[in-house]
Formats: sequence, C-alpha cells, structure tokens
Amino acid sequence: MKVAIYPGTFDPITYGHLDIIDRATRLFDRIIVTVARNPAKQPLFSVDERVFMIRQCVDELEAASRIEVESFEGLIVDYARSKKAVAIIRGLRAVSDFEYEFQMALVNRQLSEGIATVFLMPHEHYTYLNSSIVREVALFGGDVSNFVPPLVASLLKKKFQQKNQN
Amino acid sequence: MKVAIYPGTFDPITYGHLDIIDRATRLFDRIIVTVARNPAKQPLFSVDERVFMIRQCVDELEAASRIEVESFEGLIVDYARSKKAVAIIRGLRAVSDFEYEFQMALVNRQLSEGIATVFLMPHEHYTYLNSSIVREVALFGGDVSNFVPPLVASLLKKKFQQKNQN
Amino acid sequence: MKVAIYPGTFDPITYGHLDIIDRATRLFDRIIVTVARNPAKQPLFSVDERVFMIRQCVDELEAASRIEVESFEGLIVDYARSKKAVAIIRGLRAVSDFEYEFQMALVNRQLSEGIATVFLMPHEHYTYLNSSIVREVALFGGDVSNFVPPLVASLLKKKFQQKNQN
Amino acid sequence: MKVAIYPGTFDPITYGHLDIIDRATRLFDRIIVTVARNPAKQPLFSVDERVFMIRQCVDELEAASRIEVESFEGLIVDYARSKKAVAIIRGLRAVSDFEYEFQMALVNRQLSEGIATVFLMPHEHYTYLNSSIVREVALFGGDVSNFVPPLVASLLKKKFQQKNQN
Amino acid sequence: MKVAIYPGTFDPITYGHLDIIDRATRLFDRIIVTVARNPAKQPLFSVDERVFMIRQCVDELEAASRIEVESFEGLIVDYARSKKAVAIIRGLRAVSDFEYEFQMALVNRQLSEGIATVFLMPHEHYTYLNSSIVREVALFGGDVSNFVPPLVASLLKKKFQQKNQN
Amino acid sequence: MKVAIYPGTFDPITYGHLDIIDRATRLFDRIIVTVARNPAKQPLFSVDERVFMIRQCVDELEAASRIEVESFEGLIVDYARSKKAVAIIRGLRAVSDFEYEFQMALVNRQLSEGIATVFLMPHEHYTYLNSSIVREVALFGGDVSNFVPPLVASLLKKKFQQKNQN
Repeated sequence: MKVAIYPGTFDPITYGHLDIIDRATRLFDRIIVTVARNPAKQPLFSVDERVFMIRQCVDELEAASRIEVESFEGLIVDYARSKKAVAIIRGLRAVSDFEYEFQMALVNRQLSEGIATVFLMPHEHYTYLNSSIVREVALFGGDVSNFVPPLVASLLKKKFQQKNQN
Repeated sequence: MKVAIYPGTFDPITYGHLDIIDRATRLFDRIIVTVARNPAKQPLFSVDERVFMIRQCVDELEAASRIEVESFEGLIVDYARSKKAVAIIRGLRAVSDFEYEFQMALVNRQLSEGIATVFLMPHEHYTYLNSSIVREVALFGGDVSNFVPPLVASLLKKKFQQKNQN
Repeated sequence: MKVAIYPGTFDPITYGHLDIIDRATRLFDRIIVTVARNPAKQPLFSVDERVFMIRQCVDELEAASRIEVESFEGLIVDYARSKKAVAIIRGLRAVSDFEYEFQMALVNRQLSEGIATVFLMPHEHYTYLNSSIVREVALFGGDVSNFVPPLVASLLKKKFQQKNQN
Repeated sequence: MKVAIYPGTFDPITYGHLDIIDRATRLFDRIIVTVARNPAKQPLFSVDERVFMIRQCVDELEAASRIEVESFEGLIVDYARSKKAVAIIRGLRAVSDFEYEFQMALVNRQLSEGIATVFLMPHEHYTYLNSSIVREVALFGGDVSNFVPPLVASLLKKKFQQKNQN
Repeated sequence: MKVAIYPGTFDPITYGHLDIIDRATRLFDRIIVTVARNPAKQPLFSVDERVFMIRQCVDELEAASRIEVESFEGLIVDYARSKKAVAIIRGLRAVSDFEYEFQMALVNRQLSEGIATVFLMPHEHYTYLNSSIVREVALFGGDVSNFVPPLVASLLKKKFQQKNQN
Repeated sequence: MKVAIYPGTFDPITYGHLDIIDRATRLFDRIIVTVARNPAKQPLFSVDERVFMIRQCVDELEAASRIEVESFEGLIVDYARSKKAVAIIRGLRAVSDFEYEFQMALVNRQLSEGIATVFLMPHEHYTYLNSSIVREVALFGGDVSNFVPPLVASLLKKKFQQKNQN
C-alpha cells in the first residue's frame, strides 16, 4: 500500500487544495492531509479549526475513506517516515512557488533519501489561488464562494465578524 | 469618458510611479491615483502625507487636470466599480511583480468581470526601483534624488530625522 | 478617438487572442488586429488565410464594428505611427512571455516614445494556450474545440489533411 | 496496478533521466519510458538507437523488471490512455522547464481529464543537465562521463567520429 | 591590489557562503566578509557571534590570510568605498535571488558608479541552501551537518537548547 | 596577473557588450574578448567581420591596451585553460539568460573546477538589449544608433543593403 502525505498550512483550505487532494487519491492508496503546527506563526484559524474544516471538505470527495486528516509539528521528513509514506505531495502553481518548493524538496532529500517530493498541478481555475488572498477578500466582505467550499466561507465570515467586534 | 484607477501603497511615490501615471494619462481620459489604506501595515508616511505628496508631484505633469488623488479601504474592485472605472492600472517591473499582479488580477476578475487590469511598463531607468529601496537608502542618509522628486526627498529626510530624535 | 493595434502571428487565432481583443475593445475606441508578415518564417497558414480567419472570428464579438483586421511588414512602431495608434496591445500569459515582451516594448519605446505597450491578461482558461500547441494537437488529430473557434478548427483539419496527402 | 509513462526525446538519455526513472519506480508499479517519434525534428540518434540505449541503461536499475521501453507517435494523452496509465511523469529542473511543462500538462488535461501529470525533481547534481548540453560537450570532444552512463558516452563518441568523417 | 567585499546577514554562515568566499579569493587579492548590522531585524545570532563563526570557518580555507571579517551598518556602497573595494560579491542561487540582487545592484550603481557587483554561483550542492532553512531544520532537531561546518552546527544546537529552556 | 575571457557570438557587438567589457577591465588585469566559431549557426557577420568590429569598438575604451580580441572553436573551458584565465565573464540581463548561463556555468565547472564563471550586470539602459533585436530593427531600416556604435550601425546598414540586392 502506497501512502502519501500532503502537508500545508491550510489557513483555510481552498478549492485549489481540494483539487490536489482529489488528484492525489487517484495516484496513491492512502493520503494523509496534515496541518503544520508552527508556534512562530499567527494563523487566522487554530490547528483544530483547520483540521475540522479539511475533514468536512474531504468527506465530499469520492475517495474520502482513503484520506486521513492530522496535524504535526517538527520536520516533515521525520513525520513522513513515521507514517511510512513514499511521497510528499505539493501543489505547484506559479514560478515563485516552484523555487521555494525546490528548496524544501532538496533539503528534505538530504535529510531522508527515501521519500520523494511529488508535484501536482491544480486545475487552471486555481492556478493563482492561495489562502492569503482568500483571507484578504473575506476580510473586506468580498464574495469567496468561487474560492472555498460553503462551510469555509461561512466560518471565514464568522471569524471576521468576531474580529471586528473586538 | 474612460476612467482608470491606479491603486498602490505609494510609501512614498517614486519617479517610477510618476512615469506610469504619465503614460496612463495618454491612454485614458481620467486617472484616479488612490492610496490603499491598510490597517494591518505600518507605513512610514500616513495616508494623508502620501496623498499630499502624490498630489504635489502629479501637479507637475502635463495632464495634471485629468488626475485625481484619493485613498480607499476595502476591495479594489468595489472601489473601481464605484468610480465607474474601466481599468485598474498596474506597473510591471520584474518577474516577481508579475506573479503577484497576475494573482490579484485573476481574483479581481472573479470578483468583477467588467474591470480589466492593464499593465504598463515603467521606463527602464525605473525597472528595479521600488519604495522600500528608497526608504532604505534614505534611512542611511543616502542620496535619493535619482529616485524621487525633491519634495519627497526632503520629506523623507525630515521623517528620518524625527525618527532618530526619538 | 483612441486607436490601439494588436499585432501578432495568429497562426492560427485562438480563443486566447479573441479574449484579449474583446477586452481591448472596452478600453479603446478602435482596435486594429494586424498580422505580422515575416518572410523568414514558414507559417502553417498564409497571411491571407490568417486575416480571413481573424475577420470571421472577430465578427462574432459585440464590438465587431470597431475592429479592423490588416497585415503589415516592417517595424511595428512605424506601422503604429502610421495608424496614429496610442497603444500596442500585447497578451501576457507566462513569465517567458513577459521577458520577451519587455524586451520588445523597451526597444519600441526607444524607437518611438509616443506609443505605449499595454499588457492585458487573458482569461485564466487561456493562460497556457498558444498557437503552436494548437497546431501540434491538430497535427495528431486531437480535439482543438476548446482552444479555437469552429471555423479555425475545421480549417486546421483541412490543412493537415492536405499536408498528409502530399 | 498503477502504471505511469515517462515520455521524452532522450537524445540521448542522461543520468538526470535515469534518476527520475529510478524515483518513479518507487511510486508506481510499472513505468513505461517512451521515446517520442517526431518526424519534424532531426535527432542525433535514431528512435531505435535511443530505445536501445534506454533499455541498456535501465537494466542497471534495481526495479528493471518493472520498466518497459517503447516509442510512440501522436498525442501523449492518447498513448497514455491506450496504456491505461494514471500518470505522465515529467522531470522538473528549472523555471524555463516549468512553464513549458505547465502548458503541456494543461493542454493534456483538457484533452483527457483522467490522466495526471506528475512532476518529479531530479537530484541536484542533475538540476542543470540536459541532452543538448551533453551533445554539445561531446561534439567538441569533452568528457561527458559525469553526465551519461559509459555506454551512452561511447556511442556519442562513435556518432561524432562518423559525422566528422562525412 | 584588488579588494572585494562580501556583505551578508550570515545568520549563520553555511557551506554555500564558504564556497563563494573560496571562489572569490581566486579572483581578488583581498576579501572582506562583512556582517550587515540591521537594527530592524532580529537575528538568531548576535553580530559578534556571527563574526566569530565566520572567522573560525574561513580560517580553514587555503587563502585565510587574505580574508578579513568585519561588520558594518549603513549603505553598503559607502562601506565599500571606505575600503577602496572594486567589487561587491554576491552569491546567485535561484531566480528569486536574482531579481532582488539586480535591484540592489542597480541602486548601488546609481549611488556609486565605481563599484561593480560581481555575481558568483555556488556549487550545485548549495544551489538551494540558505540560512533560514538551516535555522528551521536545527530548530526541530534535524541534522544540519550537510549544510554548515561542525562549529556552526554545535552553536545552533546550543542556541536552540537555550531558547527551549526559556 | 589575472586574466578573464569574455566569450560570445557578438553578431554584432552592442553597447551592452561594451559596457560589460568596460566593467571587466576594472576587475581583471587582462580581458580576452573571444568570438565563438560555431559551424552549425549562420551568423549575419563572418567571424572576421565580428572580430574586426569588436577590435574597433574596444579601442575607444580607456583600458584598450589590456583587451585582446580573438576567436575560438570548441569547449570554452579548454580555451580558457589554454589562456590561463581565472574567470569566464558573462553578462546577465534577464531571468531567461540566468537559467541558460547557470546551466553552462555548472557544466563548465564539472569540466574544469579551476575556472569560475563571473556574472556582471550591464547598465540598466542595456538590460533588455541583445544582438538579435538589433539585427531585426536594422533589417527593417530602423534606427539602431542607441544600441550599437556608429561603425556597427553603418556595417549593419551595408549588410542589409547587400542582402536586399541579392
């Protein structure tokens, strides 16, 4: 059985991420979507909120039963090894992605030769989509329904209403 | 009458921005230069100071009477629609610009199909010029007279003198 | 009245080109789509065939009456000046485009300060579409109906049938 | 059983290609390395020579029994479908690769939704290696032993000796 | 005698930096490696710690006697002039580097025509290596011995142990 | 004495090349500008014409006595070694250059560790200038006096007049 992990910040998960997860399920037997816990960053959503949203969203996918959702802290290669993963999945959108991802992939390879980084391309609808743009549009009350599933859209709205009340 | 808006941070306005504004006036009937108010960022100059500097600088241009200077907060597409603008002007300098700008332009299109993003190229003198480099040079007392108009240069000097006294 | 020219090889015209032409008509009063005659290249379609296909395709656009289709040989800036154009329109798709286009735009500016190069972004559906990929797919009998209008698709088919008979 | 195809020109195969093939065998059950027959190009080695060299080189890999070597003509997606492949493997080296590959991947997706393009990164030793540089070095009698297996090096030498005698 | 300066943050120095320094000593008579003091940033290591680590590491190089290690604050061009340097050395790794470096080089040239920026390429082992990745790997207890000399590795370990105790 | 070679096609030499040569003379004691003889290409000017033009143009530079002009065929690293050069000079203009140059520099290093590739940046006036654009402008009778010295401009004119008579 071939296991692949798909790590990320997912703050929040978008249709672009879901597209990558869907493609990955056709290539590998089991996919572990995993939220990177990073004490140094201040995300909009907590780790628990992000895991919850991903879980809800991937349950809509055809291969939902072969997808797990977790979180991790530390080096991604250590985590991947503990899961006996053969691959780390990364979405590639634009050139700027490409260089950072290459950097990480090369460092990860030096740390652990056995795990390959596999790059998948999201649908062209999502080529230029990322979580920070979604947050920015939502912050100003813009319509994010083309970018994220309804559940995420409504949690974004609630989150910014709370923020504005403080 | 064709209106175009030219949004930005302009912290401070440079000869590169002025070059784009000048070119834009030959293409459109009215140009609204608009400073993005972003509560999350800590600019060197206040919104009022930036609007003032832009106003003073564009008054030197041949088409000054067809240029307005404003500020806005929120989604640029909402602002553009309220101004009945047909285009959002963006200066394109380098490849890194290019990707961010594409991202924004694609999101803006999803939010409002009717408004096109129009990319103009500054004069090659200004290809690699941006406001943050100008601030850095000014901070260390360097000569910024090749990068910004005299008024901006003198306000930069004053600003850093104040800062150093604190 | 503001005239803009949109030069290119158009071998053949694609939905990406048509998308750019459509956007341009909202920004300028008259658009001249012009096929570059280049004796050094060996296009699939003759200049006359390409002008014919473009003319047929733009007639479907809302602003068809404000679009002219021509061909030219020589320096684009000389041609633009003879048409009293204020702008040269270029579609920007990917980073590799970007650099070549910048190069041409800068040379054109040195040759003629008065004409600006204006970059427009095609719809993301067409981000990675270009004429040479369309020719390659058609050559091998692939379905090009997502990439070019029906007329162009049928002329491509005919062209390759002729070629294969020779 | 998950089948992936790895198409290319392989004129000739390099250590960079072999590295990608080796990685691919850890991710998929069967790999079909396939030489694209392109009547319009004039390769240094014939299709038969290239298939022969690849076959000899992959026989040194641990997973040799799960690798097939073929050639094809036409659309890669048609070929992939006929092989019931779930993935098209591509090596990603540099930014220029990236854009062309994206273009092809997007067109291939439009032609056949079911087949994903999977990008793998060669070892950093081979980041900037490609067949045309190998041919150029060999043409001038340079040492290519860091770039290609001994068999390929000796066939390159023989090929250029023949050429020089003509 | 030709003097070149090699400015940077060096937080901490890596094998990639040392590779550049080694190459620079073959081109110039004297190399001044200089740590940029930047009050606005919060580095992991103090300026004194960084100067100490660089000094210890360059002492292993063949040309150690022709290398000086210093720190500076202010405009790099003013510093370079005070050292009578003919060149500012910069390592070029990836495309994202390239644009930022170009920007700085062009601004530096406007500030001081006499000093050239010279770009050197690190060994391909270090193409994607940078100090922030080293810090990230060390933070999570990963093995950094492929990326930095033993002294730096042990100081990184000590530093993060201190941090974790606080 | 430090020798550097500056190889290229120089078909024809431009102000951008001359700017790089001028900068190189401040860094190295002797510069050998060398025209690559490539039997596979069909340049506009013969090797002898190109060497002649370069020689005439560099004679205008302050450091003319320290510049030699030659031609070579074969591997640049073999040539550089025969000249006891410590460096191969390359001009870096845009991102597309950057990748090709990196590729060549890495291959050259594998072939000869002792010779460094040194990248210099031309003046921003020449960022987007290259010989093929100059040939294209001259072909159509455009004014190339901003791009090449008067001698080169007049030889370009003569060359295309001859061509047109044939």
